[in-house]
Amino acid sequence: MKVGIIGASGYGGLELIRLLHNHTEVETIDLFTSSEEGIIFSHKYTHLLNIHDEPLLKIENDRLADFDVVFASTPSGVTSELLPPLIGRGPKLIDLSGDFRLKDPSQYEQWYKKKPAPIHAIEKSVYGLTEWNETAIQHAPLIANPGCYPTAVLLSLLPLLKENLIDATQIVIDAKSGISGAGNKPSQMTHFSETNENTAIYKLHQHQHIPEIEQAINRFADHSSPITFTTHLVPMTRGILATSYAPLNEGTTEKQLIESLQETYKNHPFVRIIKETNKFGTNQVYGSNFCDIHVKVDPRTNRATIVSVIDNLVKGAAGQAIQNMNVQFGFDQITGLQQVPLFI
Amino acid sequence: MKVGIIGASGYGGLELIRLLHNHTEVETIDLFTSSEEGIIFSHKYTHLLNIHDEPLLKIENDRLADFDVVFASTPSGVTSELLPPLIGRGPKLIDLSGDFRLKDPSQYEQWYKKKPAPIHAIEKSVYGLTEWNETAIQHAPLIANPGCYPTAVLLSLLPLLKENLIDATQIVIDAKSGISGAGNKPSQMTHFSETNENTAIYKLHQHQHIPEIEQAINRFADHSSPITFTTHLVPMTRGILATSYAPLNEGTTEKQLIESLQETYKNHPFVRIIKETNKFGTNQVYGSNFCDIHVKVDPRTNRATIVSVIDNLVKGAAGQAIQNMNVQFGFDQITGLQQVPLFI
Amino acid sequence: MKVGIIGASGYGGLELIRLLHNHTEVETIDLFTSSEEGIIFSHKYTHLLNIHDEPLLKIENDRLADFDVVFASTPSGVTSELLPPLIGRGPKLIDLSGDFRLKDPSQYEQWYKKKPAPIHAIEKSVYGLTEWNETAIQHAPLIANPGCYPTAVLLSLLPLLKENLIDATQIVIDAKSGISGAGNKPSQMTHFSETNENTAIYKLHQHQHIPEIEQAINRFADHSSPITFTTHLVPMTRGILATSYAPLNEGTTEKQLIESLQETYKNHPFVRIIKETNKFGTNQVYGSNFCDIHVKVDPRTNRATIVSVIDNLVKGAAGQAIQNMNVQFGFDQITGLQQVPLFI
Amino acid sequence: MKVGIIGASGYGGLELIRLLHNHTEVETIDLFTSSEEGIIFSHKYTHLLNIHDEPLLKIENDRLADFDVVFASTPSGVTSELLPPLIGRGPKLIDLSGDFRLKDPSQYEQWYKKKPAPIHAIEKSVYGLTEWNETAIQHAPLIANPGCYPTAVLLSLLPLLKENLIDATQIVIDAKSGISGAGNKPSQMTHFSETNENTAIYKLHQHQHIPEIEQAINRFADHSSPITFTTHLVPMTRGILATSYAPLNEGTTEKQLIESLQETYKNHPFVRIIKETNKFGTNQVYGSNFCDIHVKVDPRTNRATIVSVIDNLVKGAAGQAIQNMNVQFGFDQITGLQQVPLFI
Repeated sequence: MKVGIIGASGYGGLELIRLLHNHTEVETIDLFTSSEEGIIFSHKYTHLLNIHDEPLLKIENDRLADFDVVFASTPSGVTSELLPPLIGRGPKLIDLSGDFRLKDPSQYEQWYKKKPAPIHAIEKSVYGLTEWNETAIQHAPLIANPGCYPTAVLLSLLPLLKENLIDATQIVIDAKSGISGAGNKPSQMTHFSETNENTAIYKLHQHQHIPEIEQAINRFADHSSPITFTTHLVPMTRGILATSYAPLNEGTTEKQLIESLQETYKNHPFVRIIKETNKFGTNQVYGSNFCDIHVKVDPRTNRATIVSVIDNLVKGAAGQAIQNMNVQFGFDQITGLQQVPLFI
Repeated sequence: MKVGIIGASGYGGLELIRLLHNHTEVETIDLFTSSEEGIIFSHKYTHLLNIHDEPLLKIENDRLADFDVVFASTPSGVTSELLPPLIGRGPKLIDLSGDFRLKDPSQYEQWYKKKPAPIHAIEKSVYGLTEWNETAIQHAPLIANPGCYPTAVLLSLLPLLKENLIDATQIVIDAKSGISGAGNKPSQMTHFSETNENTAIYKLHQHQHIPEIEQAINRFADHSSPITFTTHLVPMTRGILATSYAPLNEGTTEKQLIESLQETYKNHPFVRIIKETNKFGTNQVYGSNFCDIHVKVDPRTNRATIVSVIDNLVKGAAGQAIQNMNVQFGFDQITGLQQVPLFI
Repeated sequence: MKVGIIGASGYGGLELIRLLHNHTEVETIDLFTSSEEGIIFSHKYTHLLNIHDEPLLKIENDRLADFDVVFASTPSGVTSELLPPLIGRGPKLIDLSGDFRLKDPSQYEQWYKKKPAPIHAIEKSVYGLTEWNETAIQHAPLIANPGCYPTAVLLSLLPLLKENLIDATQIVIDAKSGISGAGNKPSQMTHFSETNENTAIYKLHQHQHIPEIEQAINRFADHSSPITFTTHLVPMTRGILATSYAPLNEGTTEKQLIESLQETYKNHPFVRIIKETNKFGTNQVYGSNFCDIHVKVDPRTNRATIVSVIDNLVKGAAGQAIQNMNVQFGFDQITGLQQVPLFI
Repeated sequence: MKVGIIGASGYGGLELIRLLHNHTEVETIDLFTSSEEGIIFSHKYTHLLNIHDEPLLKIENDRLADFDVVFASTPSGVTSELLPPLIGRGPKLIDLSGDFRLKDPSQYEQWYKKKPAPIHAIEKSVYGLTEWNETAIQHAPLIANPGCYPTAVLLSLLPLLKENLIDATQIVIDAKSGISGAGNKPSQMTHFSETNENTAIYKLHQHQHIPEIEQAINRFADHSSPITFTTHLVPMTRGILATSYAPLNEGTTEKQLIESLQETYKNHPFVRIIKETNKFGTNQVYGSNFCDIHVKVDPRTNRATIVSVIDNLVKGAAGQAIQNMNVQFGFDQITGLQQVPLFI
């Protein structure tokens, strides 16, 4: 397999390199850039010395057309122009940005404040939530890889919503993320001295992952109520913990919630249902493609608290993208993704 | 003023020393211990060298009776026996533990799994949520200083609940705390390597601050519905951020919520209502006695998100305790508590 | 006292505001800016709400001339032009930048790669290492406040060098600093995700504090050998720990080293000599103006290890600047600087 | 290959499991315990769910004798009794503790304050500094895996000392380590609130790795001068950065130092010589078995600064242990150790 990566300097791109380096089906990895052509990548990122010492290549469609798969990990607003011309020209396309996730272009404009991708390209793209969309992914020319927050939220809520075990009209989701989710571009918001020893809420009610989560709930669980979704930055690099709250529907028991999750994911190696726990945190999936889920009912309020954790750069980005590539090419889903979590 | 502190080695005690050291009305500070009598405190805590170099004193009621005020900062289950004999013997008593917060002894047994304080002592104690209980605090012989989580939650929710602006039957509170809230006793849960780079949920639905919050909502805002309250540990030392969610009651506007908070706290120097914000975090109150509150309505869901931040060791413990002492002795509330937050 | 601050947005400036706010001799604090005239400072830095809500003022010499003291906390290369015209026009000037520290302009050009200040202004300026230059500071129109690293290093080494107890020709200094030393300007070097979980060496052999340390050793201890000085960034916000190594001179004992330090600083409230220690760290001075020093001889090598810790933003910047102001105006040195360290 | 691990609960043990899980030559991994027999390991360490769900086994020599290799990762003082009876009974033994590193039992007693291993066992053991002792390791029945600090220090200094390029009589080594080096046992020293935002020096002149480094310098580079070696704790989980200082010997150039390192390690895949660098830190080897080295001469002092970084749990413990296993069994050294560093 010949793999091309556009936007290698971003954290999604660096993580693709880390994971693909030990993927048994991958022969070559080439990195493409819009502005840094010719730069030896390991001179810019010393940690890759002796691992990837080739120069960055110029983005050219004819060149990209020769690859088996092309991953794009760029800021929003880039691939909406870059990828459409490549559809059907050969390579499978996997986009880690938000440009092809929303089926309704007006929603993209509203939440991303940018020009949406052409409608024909959006229609050809498939939402890459692997555990829920495997068949469509197999034949997709272009995969819209899910956002980090939606991945953590949807994997934990979709089974319960699809089976109408919880009240879809009163979902509250409180998400906490490490700083790497903000990418590699320095800013006051990611400046160490103002981020360390600080837990903060940001983009209150405005996060562009809100319509993505609602679209997927509608598509996979057939509910259309708006959700309350808030995002927080905590002083760590990797990890997302999403705490979701919902009233139980009439007659639902905690046992049913647990069994629904276990049944849904019994054949999915990367989703683990954690039954008993005193402490449940992001370090149990650090550096791995796992999504761990814990659910508990509070009998005092008859509400369920559903908690899920992922590594935002792996299951929330590069790992799930590779999992989708594995599906597209008929490899075992776990190929190249068997990293054991760095608990410490 | 002669001040005595029981349990000086705990983080609440250390913070009392830090803040009282510059309190203009305090002449002497004596530290009492059950097990380390005679130890020079600054030999154990070097940061206090040249600040508090006296030996720890043995806890004896006759000795304690000579002080103007005695602060107790011990684990739960200690002051329930220690303080009752001192009531009325002279010193004002301010307890930072949970032993006198719950008026119903059976609730204490249920949530703390310990023997409650004698009922006569509980009845004499006054809940020290300064901004809401000032008159009672003035004449209280024994103050039950609020827990850190309840302080952050109650200051932000009570005005809105009291005025029936939000639906008291559907309150969801998602709280995040730094590790210092777990105290100074080493454990796996506070072990650096397992806490760093980790955000975790703990004590799910079991936290002993749940009945404390519900009791105060009942007492000060006259609502009795159970709440959903969850607690998370984030990898920082100080700070609590509480994110609360509630549907608006018929006809409530965001403007009303903001005005309710502004009106309630207009004469209270330590509560700040933050109107506009891109990022709202714990570092804006670090090391200070402030509680900052931000509220925003999501028109898509007609729910309010109410966010509040405090330094758990100051407004959530030692600072509020000193604020209560100031009220008891008729000092200006801000005496000794004018620390500017360490934003960085 | 009327105080003016130029460069309030920098971390040195923010710390000046934090400390001066409770300085009993300071009546007013005005903030000056080159680019943000009219902005309400507490709208930019929310943590200062209700503390400093005045608008930023335009930098104008006639206006600045009316103040009793003007602190400048700007990047290097700014005050070299800004302050000279103000010398002798009224206010005492205290510069926290490096522009007036080096007496030899060619050294400034070599290490700072910028145009030096006019020689007449450099000649009028006094190096503000308070404990070592008090008399000169009293009458200085312009104080060059020492750098953070030099403060930690010089306070620990000068007594031993002055008394020829250690070999001045073989000094090795290994310094570790929190990230706030790099200031408030975002960059890859201060980007959370690349700084967290990372200890790094930077500016190897090139740090501009090298000539400052050597100049002070020459001036106050009369030795002129070049030093080896390296700087490291550790993942914390505040604090510097400097570990210095030197062979003992013939006949020197550990006892002499300790007594030299104790004798030198016996009347200096902010320098503490720590004799016994299992663990000696930056948190014992966090947020305070203390410099703690520990020295130990290794009998196996007959070398001394001298360790000192400061809060780089307090004793290493704003705190020492205020200490110098206190000296200039004849106040007790500890006025406004009695903050107890935040050990946790 | 059948692999047994004694002391799996320690951080060295957990890291062995993480790395061996993807080792192509390893068929089975069994975990042995002295006190927790029968416990399902993934119930204790949730991050290993679906990865290692077998019960812990009781330590019995007859049982252990059936394995191809037995790793021991226990506190010092355990394997000195546990392993000697197993020597020659079948399995290759690899000890991650300090019990067999020092050839002189009296030194072990002096620095470890414990009873040394039997001399016959010490004599049979081989020091596992892979790059320097490969031939002996191939046939060793018992490998004493090097300490984390010695690994970082020796790999960077041995070539320069062996070729007499630097002055062996004046070596100063300043080492900084993440907290995981202190193991998984909670204590005040590893308590988050007292470790976070704190850089500290500990065990000054007393660290048990001092004699280990000196012994190896004597053995591999034929110098016997005592070294100055200090250890610091920085607030991160993984990583060691060692900064070493030495005067150049007559006529040595920086070019020679670099070439000496490059030549020594040209066929060693895990040691990387970094020539140009603005910032050189532990994150460039995070989670990997690399040791990166940078050397620079300060012409002002004619001293060399030699900096090396490793992940203390990988190259400094489990990774090097597996590298030694690969050598013992004739596998390619990189088998199972090709993890790409987690730069972020």
